Amino acid sequence: MTAFVKELEEAADRVTVALDALLPRADGPEARLASAMRYAALGPGKRVRPFLALQAGRLIGADERGLLRVSCAIECIHSYSLIHDDLPCMDDDDLRRGRPTVHIAYDEAIAVLAGDALQAVAFEILAEPDTHVNGQVRALLVSELARAAGARGMVGGQALDMALSEERTEDIGLITRTQRLKTGALIAYSVTAPAIMTDAGKEARVALDGFAHDLGLIYQIVDDILDAEGSTDELGKTAGKDARQGKATFVSILGIEGARDRATRLARQAKEHLAMFGDDAHMLSSAVDYVLDRRA
Amino acid sequence: MTAFVKELEEAADRVTVALDALLPRADGPEARLASAMRYAALGPGKRVRPFLALQAGRLIGADERGLLRVSCAIECIHSYSLIHDDLPCMDDDDLRRGRPTVHIAYDEAIAVLAGDALQAVAFEILAEPDTHVNGQVRALLVSELARAAGARGMVGGQALDMALSEERTEDIGLITRTQRLKTGALIAYSVTAPAIMTDAGKEARVALDGFAHDLGLIYQIVDDILDAEGSTDELGKTAGKDARQGKATFVSILGIEGARDRATRLARQAKEHLAMFGDDAHMLSSAVDYVLDRRA
Repeated sequence: MTAFVKELEEAADRVTVALDALLPRADGPEARLASAMRYAALGPGKRVRPFLALQAGRLIGADERGLLRVSCAIECIHSYSLIHDDLPCMDDDDLRRGRPTVHIAYDEAIAVLAGDALQAVAFEILAEPDTHVNGQVRALLVSELARAAGARGMVGGQALDMALSEERTEDIGLITRTQRLKTGALIAYSVTAPAIMTDAGKEARVALDGFAHDLGLIYQIVDDILDAEGSTDELGKTAGKDARQGKATFVSILGIEGARDRATRLARQAKEHLAMFGDDAHMLSSAVDYVLDRRA
Repeated sequence: MTAFVKELEEAADRVTVALDALLPRADGPEARLASAMRYAALGPGKRVRPFLALQAGRLIGADERGLLRVSCAIECIHSYSLIHDDLPCMDDDDLRRGRPTVHIAYDEAIAVLAGDALQAVAFEILAEPDTHVNGQVRALLVSELARAAGARGMVGGQALDMALSEERTEDIGLITRTQRLKTGALIAYSVTAPAIMTDAGKEARVALDGFAHDLGLIYQIVDDILDAEGSTDELGKTAGKDARQGKATFVSILGIEGARDRATRLARQAKEHLAMFGDDAHMLSSAVDYVLDRRA
């Protein structure tokens, strides 16, 4: 096991333990709702976004406990978005991370509500009184996350993405913009939120921002490649959906090789953004390769 | 037109104008999502919760601009909850405030996403840098709203309410608890959030809290009575649904007269909580009668 994978798994465990303590217990009359929230947020998952937040935060000396809270909030937003994206009226998927999706394991109403409650708890976690992070910073963390997750961020990107399935565009600019919102905005928040917690200089913020945007795009391009090439077993979610839906993706426009070339070029560019941090950015740099080479 | 109704309508107008400026414009590729958000949040509505926030805030001298932000955030949460509650997998309603519900006017996917984005924008509005309300207070406003709207508040109540439809309970305690969460938590937040913005004493906070809890319960009891007695035309939403679904409500357990008695007693109690404010609480006191006597 490489040092990187070990670090990734350790971060995932820390976040899962912290989330377990922060999410409502599954007892009492509301047990079913809390149980669905925990099923979605505590189940298997690579926790790449929390990992990015923890690593970026260490790079610029952010408070560890504050970082853990930010990481948990990000994972709640990510989990809620997956629950809602999988709904029958959205991507209509039965399988996620190798398990039945929430609306299959529970029911559709609980899936809608569990997603809604996970979004609320993300903001509760970020805003809650905390002696390690002052109120001004907590409010900023909330407003930036709300922007990244909302109509001009993740949710806006998901709406555009659904429109793409119908329009069969060949406009690579529109697809890039869509994916920058849909997956890019939350990844960018993960990498740049720690800078809100410290007095990291403008140069460091700009570098992290550039890194995050490239990484988000690589993530989505590789997603498109995996959907086209991977098997459902390997992915833990249904493969080949884009082509069946006739959806415009990086692969449908650039071809597999073209998409792979673009991802490789972006990876080089992402690492260049980290140059100012020298060896300290080793883990973030490895994260680029990890995202580029992942098989699921 | 009574002074109260005039005040209510003026408050509704102020909040609608402020929200119109805060919500994303319906242009560009994301136009459809933004349009659905605006359809839900800016459409007809009495804006009772924002009115309560504005009035409670004046009573304890909270900053007017800050109050307007809080009111807009509350209305966004309320609007999102209505969109999701109306979905086919939830209450499956075609009509709301006399107009087609969002999933009818647009489609189900947009309805899920518009609700999600309205929740995000509520927290964005509350947390955004604002020279009139300091960061510490903004963070507290967020964490309390997140709690009121989440699994142990509004969303938890909605989950319990759906379970009630299936269980046919006669347990009035369980129904009261469900409604305290489902409608009570957000009404309580509306009345008590302004106290976070001022150094209102403990006595005032406790009084407002007691008032809010009684008012929330009256609201729900009257809702149950209207569903049983009102017409769809009058209500602007489908009437008679509870009985058709065999759902346990205050009316199914207490009968119409019993439910009305309970609401009247709670109204007296709610006004008693306001005694310490004297004549200044005139508008909040009138709000009790308004909620008690409303026909829609």
